[in-house]
Amino acid sequence: MTEVSHERGELTARGKSGLGLVETHYVELFQEGLELESGVRFGPITVAYETYGELSPRRDNVILVCHALSGGAHAAGWLPGQKKPGWWDIMIGPGKAFDTNKYFVICSNVLGSCYGTTGPSSLDPKTGKPYGLTFPVVTIRDMVNVQARLLDYLGIARVLCVTGGSMGGMQALQWAVAYPERVRSVVAIATTWRHSAQQIAFNEVARQAIMADPAWNRGDYYGTEGPRMGLAVARMIGHITYLSDVSMERKFGRRLRNRERYGFDFTSIDFEVESYLRYQGQSFVERFDANSLLYLTKALDYFDVTQGTGALTDAFAGSKSLFLFITFSSDWLYPPQQLKEVAQAVRRAGGDATYCEINSDYGHDAFLLEHAAQAPLIASFLQRASEHQFEGDSGEGI
Amino acid sequence: MTEVSHERGELTARGKSGLGLVETHYVELFQEGLELESGVRFGPITVAYETYGELSPRRDNVILVCHALSGGAHAAGWLPGQKKPGWWDIMIGPGKAFDTNKYFVICSNVLGSCYGTTGPSSLDPKTGKPYGLTFPVVTIRDMVNVQARLLDYLGIARVLCVTGGSMGGMQALQWAVAYPERVRSVVAIATTWRHSAQQIAFNEVARQAIMADPAWNRGDYYGTEGPRMGLAVARMIGHITYLSDVSMERKFGRRLRNRERYGFDFTSIDFEVESYLRYQGQSFVERFDANSLLYLTKALDYFDVTQGTGALTDAFAGSKSLFLFITFSSDWLYPPQQLKEVAQAVRRAGGDATYCEINSDYGHDAFLLEHAAQAPLIASFLQRASEHQFEGDSGEGI
Repeated sequence: MTEVSHERGELTARGKSGLGLVETHYVELFQEGLELESGVRFGPITVAYETYGELSPRRDNVILVCHALSGGAHAAGWLPGQKKPGWWDIMIGPGKAFDTNKYFVICSNVLGSCYGTTGPSSLDPKTGKPYGLTFPVVTIRDMVNVQARLLDYLGIARVLCVTGGSMGGMQALQWAVAYPERVRSVVAIATTWRHSAQQIAFNEVARQAIMADPAWNRGDYYGTEGPRMGLAVARMIGHITYLSDVSMERKFGRRLRNRERYGFDFTSIDFEVESYLRYQGQSFVERFDANSLLYLTKALDYFDVTQGTGALTDAFAGSKSLFLFITFSSDWLYPPQQLKEVAQAVRRAGGDATYCEINSDYGHDAFLLEHAAQAPLIASFLQRASEHQFEGDSGEGI
Repeated sequence: MTEVSHERGELTARGKSGLGLVETHYVELFQEGLELESGVRFGPITVAYETYGELSPRRDNVILVCHALSGGAHAAGWLPGQKKPGWWDIMIGPGKAFDTNKYFVICSNVLGSCYGTTGPSSLDPKTGKPYGLTFPVVTIRDMVNVQARLLDYLGIARVLCVTGGSMGGMQALQWAVAYPERVRSVVAIATTWRHSAQQIAFNEVARQAIMADPAWNRGDYYGTEGPRMGLAVARMIGHITYLSDVSMERKFGRRLRNRERYGFDFTSIDFEVESYLRYQGQSFVERFDANSLLYLTKALDYFDVTQGTGALTDAFAGSKSLFLFITFSSDWLYPPQQLKEVAQAVRRAGGDATYCEINSDYGHDAFLLEHAAQAPLIASFLQRASEHQFEGDSGEGI
């Protein structure tokens, strides 16, 4: 979902980004191990993270950004030698929605990923080999617990805002429920409070595509090419769900790929949309770990913000945060209705929820593209959250 | 799409079907070869077909039923030893929508399939081995041309109605455009006049899933197990598109499969919907040929009823048929809008089109399930078509 499409490339041409060069940091946490939702104790855990802007003396200007399935800690600015800025560079930087002239933005790679934080492709210190399937199954709650420890390490007791789209939005919701006293506000975008049967189904097919590839070898493929074909197919499936019918039609329609008539065979490529999908699949293989896709899709499917509380209203009963929910009209992977239900539950629980459905043809990917529509909503919401009296504000900072 | 789901099984419990035992017939046509849309000449072609009811002396009561992707000639009644009736048994039989007390129903397996009509798994008489990828790429137009020759062979000059859902609906539209003088009426259901980029995309991923399986072996797998894993994944993708979000949620929700808590591993099955999809994938592997899936999805993607005419209105300018178009509100694979465009084009061309959008939660599969809603529409339409004055009616019959 952090795929840099052609549009996004145009929107974030180098030079337009105000953050300039940034740096990824690494810290090892949980020497004693983290008790996971599964009951397994796991550690130590290396966490990759980046920060942008400056922490205020009162430490009250922190924004925690959570990434989606294929994102990482590198949310904005440029890393040396890379051709593209971070995955949410259109939203994070001086004068942008998450204004680094005002706020101190933190983004860390989630537990189970392959971009610096410990995951199935990391080396198990006990064996010196990659974990593979011996890596424990992790959940959104586990990811959030790791982020909480990272904030402890950075000396940050409470954040002004936790935000994210898609899987990042689930983490933001989980923060509000698990750490209500640490979250002044939440901006959850293009996400849901739990997966429906159809959402699980798409993930299951992606997992099956990977596991059907003999080169997957039950997750023990490091040092080999790995399940390249299976991972490409899995990504192609995902990619269809990230776009809307309308945006695909506008972008590709039935346009043929470098030809005037059908090829009438199975070796050549007929349609532009086929070429695009294959390209997306292949380029994903170069940058993502197949096992991480298995683990992260499982975390998505397991997520249910009401777990332990029963009803959605009960889940948010303890929260004093301000909420902003943003959905996109053509997002059929995470249809607006699901987040609207959360907004209604927050209000029923006596909370403060703003719900905005942005009219967009970009489908689920809109949260990565529609900065013009999102930015003013978010900027003014953050201003309000900054001024909002929060229970226990005297104890702000650490 | 002719998958027999649990619902369908209930709707068509043995004994409720009035046709009793039926028989599949085979005929070899095109000894001289058929000129395919690709330019290739191909033949001979064996055609599998079934008929139900009796041909009237004037030969004016013929209904040609066209099947969807994974269907076959066995549309209704029972074949010896089989546990399920034909794929549209709820619609075809005495007193049903296509009433075999009145009409003579013909259904033939399409060119390129694996259910009796010549396809990639058939033996090439020149080599004595299965065609595999040496089988020519065929189109909806080619399939219809084969059906037309079958009608010639059966001595039928003109049909009262040509009908079908999904890929069958495309054939029905193609009949109206290619053989306007042979078609008194058309009932096209849950289909489109050409694939959108998203529809092509889903098919392309299914094809990639098959071709990614090393056991596919460039289509040369007969005599081996073949690409079982790839074919199963392809079917799972398709199956998601056949159901609606709502029907999946109602049928499965987040219900766990024989367990009280998540498995936290990748070997057990967590959710019912995962189990269901895997079962659908596996059972499809037992009954369908992977190469046929490649060829038929390609035919779907290539189909454009306006090919050669340009505009949709022009395509139907020559047609004197009566048209009934049926769509289903929750069908997101073939959204109602696409067939509505055809209805509008027929009317603009001066034709007679009835358009009905049935409210249903069953998604695309509704055309196989919603007999109560479809049957009266179709029965009364057929009555009207029977009474309708058709140009050149004096020459009815052969």
